Amino acid sequence: MKKLRPQLATPDDAEAVFYESFIRCDTPVMTALWADGDVVCVHPGSAAILGHDAVCRSWSNIFSNAQRAQVEYSVVKRTVSNDLAVHIVMEEILTEEAGVAIVLATNVYRRYQSGWLMIEHHASLVQRRSNDRTLQ
Amino acid sequence: MKKLRPQLATPDDAEAVFYESFIRCDTPVMTALWADGDVVCVHPGSAAILGHDAVCRSWSNIFSNAQRAQVEYSVVKRTVSNDLAVHIVMEEILTEEAGVAIVLATNVYRRYQSGWLMIEHHASLVQRRSNDRTLQ
Repeated sequence: MKKLRPQLATPDDAEAVFYESFIRCDTPVMTALWADGDVVCVHPGSAAILGHDAVCRSWSNIFSNAQRAQVEYSVVKRTVSNDLAVHIVMEEILTEEAGVAIVLATNVYRRYQSGWLMIEHHASLVQRRSNDRTLQ
Repeated sequence: MKKLRPQLATPDDAEAVFYESFIRCDTPVMTALWADGDVVCVHPGSAAILGHDAVCRSWSNIFSNAQRAQVEYSVVKRTVSNDLAVHIVMEEILTEEAGVAIVLATNVYRRYQSGWLMIEHHASLVQRRSNDRTLQ
């Protein structure tokens, strides 16, 4: 099936679509936002998921299990170079089940002819009590 | 103090220096590898640390508490665009205390006049039992 690609003029536009689809549990929009090929997604605490279809299936599974969550996000840092952009984003996710969770995400976007698409999402939960005694 | 910058011709060279300094708990080499300015580091389970000095202090703290670890790494995916490179890396970290841990890292490098330097490291622990019921 040919995907209808969004026409996204900036990495910020792509990011807005990402979080909109996340909040709305909207699999078709999420699927159209991810580039084809060997994209990578790491959900909190999970292994890497490789490839457009596997990544989008993982979002579809999450959306089918999830309550709709309230998500607020703020960009901690943007780095851009021609056709590649890296954003570090702090997400505050509020669900009735789990309360508020703070997640840090590295979101990577690439510019294609049609516009910017997502090629990586790496998310990790910020533990409430973290100190310097980590593995690394 | 003026930092002696390594002359690193490729992102892979920078990555090799990163893991060498990690394995050897070598703060001066780690400090020289990170670019100045608003770089970002996320240790597993931790909040974002911003800025060269704070990031390097965090590594110094980790090294002073840590046993030397055995670390093997393999690059899952490389994306490069002119002067910006994003690597997804799987790390296997072996310590006597904690056994083997699998960590996923997004490492971001930027090319400066002197060569490639690190501007982001975002690491997350892969939980032994992960399933689709994550926060996102």
